[in-house]
Amino acid sequence: MACIAFATDYGLADGFVAACHGVARTLAPHAALIDVTHAIPPGDVARGARLLAEVAPYLPPGTVCVAVVDPGVGTARRAVAVEAASGVLVGPDNGLLLPAADALGGARRAVELTDARLFRHPVSATFHGRDVFTPVAAHLAGGLDLAAAGTAVGLDTLARLPGAVVRRGERRLEAEVVGVDRFGNVQLAAGPDDLPLSDGTGVTVDGGTAGAVAAVRGRTFGDVDAGRVVVLVDAAGRLAVAVRGGRASDVLGAAPGDVLCLVRAQGAGQTAIGSA
Amino acid sequence: MACIAFATDYGLADGFVAACHGVARTLAPHAALIDVTHAIPPGDVARGARLLAEVAPYLPPGTVCVAVVDPGVGTARRAVAVEAASGVLVGPDNGLLLPAADALGGARRAVELTDARLFRHPVSATFHGRDVFTPVAAHLAGGLDLAAAGTAVGLDTLARLPGAVVRRGERRLEAEVVGVDRFGNVQLAAGPDDLPLSDGTGVTVDGGTAGAVAAVRGRTFGDVDAGRVVVLVDAAGRLAVAVRGGRASDVLGAAPGDVLCLVRAQGAGQTAIGSA
Amino acid sequence: MACIAFATDYGLADGFVAACHGVARTLAPHAALIDVTHAIPPGDVARGARLLAEVAPYLPPGTVCVAVVDPGVGTARRAVAVEAASGVLVGPDNGLLLPAADALGGARRAVELTDARLFRHPVSATFHGRDVFTPVAAHLAGGLDLAAAGTAVGLDTLARLPGAVVRRGERRLEAEVVGVDRFGNVQLAAGPDDLPLSDGTGVTVDGGTAGAVAAVRGRTFGDVDAGRVVVLVDAAGRLAVAVRGGRASDVLGAAPGDVLCLVRAQGAGQTAIGSA
Repeated sequence: MACIAFATDYGLADGFVAACHGVARTLAPHAALIDVTHAIPPGDVARGARLLAEVAPYLPPGTVCVAVVDPGVGTARRAVAVEAASGVLVGPDNGLLLPAADALGGARRAVELTDARLFRHPVSATFHGRDVFTPVAAHLAGGLDLAAAGTAVGLDTLARLPGAVVRRGERRLEAEVVGVDRFGNVQLAAGPDDLPLSDGTGVTVDGGTAGAVAAVRGRTFGDVDAGRVVVLVDAAGRLAVAVRGGRASDVLGAAPGDVLCLVRAQGAGQTAIGSA
Repeated sequence: MACIAFATDYGLADGFVAACHGVARTLAPHAALIDVTHAIPPGDVARGARLLAEVAPYLPPGTVCVAVVDPGVGTARRAVAVEAASGVLVGPDNGLLLPAADALGGARRAVELTDARLFRHPVSATFHGRDVFTPVAAHLAGGLDLAAAGTAVGLDTLARLPGAVVRRGERRLEAEVVGVDRFGNVQLAAGPDDLPLSDGTGVTVDGGTAGAVAAVRGRTFGDVDAGRVVVLVDAAGRLAVAVRGGRASDVLGAAPGDVLCLVRAQGAGQTAIGSA
Repeated sequence: MACIAFATDYGLADGFVAACHGVARTLAPHAALIDVTHAIPPGDVARGARLLAEVAPYLPPGTVCVAVVDPGVGTARRAVAVEAASGVLVGPDNGLLLPAADALGGARRAVELTDARLFRHPVSATFHGRDVFTPVAAHLAGGLDLAAAGTAVGLDTLARLPGAVVRRGERRLEAEVVGVDRFGNVQLAAGPDDLPLSDGTGVTVDGGTAGAVAAVRGRTFGDVDAGRVVVLVDAAGRLAVAVRGGRASDVLGAAPGDVLCLVRAQGAGQTAIGSA
C-alpha cells in the first residue's frame, strides 16, 4: 500500500495540513497518510531536517515524504524531489531533505519540480505544500517515476545544512543540543562512540545555565534514582541527558543550540564505577 | 472512496475527537477520515466557519464534513445536514455550516436531523458530535440519501452569521482581522479587489496597537527584506499582512476582531513604485 | 477491518507517534489507525487510564489499543497484552490498562510479552512504544492469537491503580476531580447515583480555591444562564461541573486531584425546585 508522510511547520490549528491531506486523498485515494510532525518551530529547517531523518527509517519502505519548512516559498529556491534507497522526499531545496535521504540509505537521484502539469492550479505564491509538493508526492505515490516529475539535477547541487557542533577530546566531549523533547530530555548531536562510557560511569555535564551537574551513564531513565541525571543513548541513537521523573532541560538549563561539555570521571576509563 | 472530515473546537487532549473517529470507523469502516482542525477556539463559531470554508474546497469531492462548534448543544438549536454541490456538511444550525456550503458550490438542500434511528444511543446531552453528527455523517458517507436523514428544511431558514467588516474607500480599505495563523500572518476579511494594488506599491497599515506601519504590496514573504511588512494575497484568496521572518500580528499589534485600515501611498495608483 | 488505536503521553511534536504509526503501517498495512490522545501529561498513568477507558467503548469492536505512559520503560516492569470482551490492550503493566479492559466488558486473559521475535530490533531501552508494543499490537491486529504473543499471566497479578476519592453522605458528596477538559469542565470521580439530584435542584460546590459556589443540577450547558454554574452528567457518564460560556475550573478554582464537596440544597430532596 502506498504511503504519503508529512513533516511541516504548519501546526494543526489553521487547516494547512488538512488542505494537504485533502489534496493527497483526492489524487491518491488509496494511499495511507502519516503525519511525521507539524510542530516544527516555524522556519526551523535544521530542526525539521533532524526530526524527519529520525522518523523516516520507521516509515513503510517506499513512503513518499512531503517535507515543508519553507521560509523562501514563492522565491527562486528550487522545489525538488529526492529519491533515496528506501523512500522519496519532496520539498524545498533548502537543506531539509538530505539528512532524511541519508537515513533512508542515501540519495540516488533528484529532480527539480518543473512540470507544472503535476501541480494544483492556481498555484498560490505562499502555499506550495498544498499546490506543488503534495500533488507531486501523490503522483509519485501513485507510481509516477521520479524522472517524469521534473528535470534531473545533480545530487551535489542539493542544499545541505552545516552539521551541528561535535568536538571529541580524551575524556571530554563538546556537543550541541539538537533537541529537547516533550519530557525535557536533552538530545545531543553526538553518538555513544564520541565519548565511550560504561554503564555506571560518572560524567559531569556542563555548559547549561545551571553550570556543572553530576550525572551517571545508564541505559534508561529508571537506572538512576528519582531526580538524578542520567546520560543515555536515546531511541534515535544519539547521546541524551535525562532526569528520572524530571526535565533535564530545566535541571541543566539547556536549550537547542547550546553546546554542552561532558567530562568522564577521573580514572573511570570505560569501566563501570559505583557512583558519580 | 468515501471521506468523512472533522472540524471542531474539541482539541486533541481529551479524547473527544477519538470517540468521533471510533464511531465513524465502526459505522463506515472503509471511509477515509480527515481532520480539518480541532483547534477552533472553544465556542468561536465564526472562526470555525471560516476555517472550514477555507479547507473544504481542497477535500475530495463528496466528502461529508462533521462540523462541531456547538455551545448550544442539547438545547433547542437544530441539528442539520446541508448538501452543497460538491460535499455535505453536518452540524449545529448556528451559522457554522453555510460559508463552507458556499465554498462547495452553494447549498442545494438541507434536512433537520430528526431520525433518531441514525443516532448512537444513549444520546448524551452534551456530546452530539459523537452521538448525533458523526453517526449521521457516517450513514451519509455510506450512501444514505440526504432526504432519508431527516426532515427537509428551507435553505433560507438556516442560520447565517453576520459578515465581517469590510469598508472600501478611494485609496483606503477598512477590513476586520479574521484570523492570525501560526506564523503570525494577519488575515483580513477583504480580498485583493477591495483595494487594487500593484506589486511594489506602498501601503500604510493602521489600526493595531502599534499604530501606522509602512508596508509594501508583494506576492510572497520573500519579496521584502527581513523584518519588513508585506501585504499579499494569502492561499485562501484573502488580503493578509505578513512580516518576512517575523510575526505581523506582533509588529502591528493586531488580533482577530480588530479592524485595520490600509491606505495606498499617494500617487501610487495601481503602478508599482520603488519604495514604501 | 482491523483497527489499531494509540493512547500515549508522547505529544505530537517529537515524531514518537509517527514512528509508531510507521511501524504499525509497515507490519499491518491495511489496519486503520486511530489516535485516542497523545496529550496525556507526561508520566500521568492515572489520567491516561481514565482517558483510554472513556474512549475505548467507542472504538470499533476488536480494536487493538497501544497504550503507553511508561516512566519505567526499560526496567523490570512487565510489558503485557490484555484481552477484554471487545478489544485488546497492549502496554506496560503499571495500572494503565485495566480500567479500559473493564470498559470493554472485562479482562479475559493476559500475556506478558516475552516473545522477542515479535519485536522490532534493535529494541531500544527507552522507546518500547515503537519497538515492543506497536509491533506486537500490529501482529495481534493481523490475527495473531493472544496466547502466541507471550506467556500467560494471571489477571489478578496485573497492576491496578487505587480508585479516586468518592465519599457519599446524606445530602452531600465528596469526589475527586479526575479531569479538566479543554472547555474548563470539571469532571468528578463520582456518577449521578452518588448524589441523586433532580433537574433544577440547587447544589453548593465547595473545595476549590474560590470556596462555596452556588450551582444547579441540569442536563446541559444551556440549561442555565450565561456565567452560571451547572452540575450535569457528562458524556462519559460522570458528574461534572460546568459554567455556561465560561470555565468551571476557573470559577471554582479546581484542578485534578482536588476533592470537591457537593451539598444538595436543604429540603430539595429529589424534587426539582425553581432556583438555586
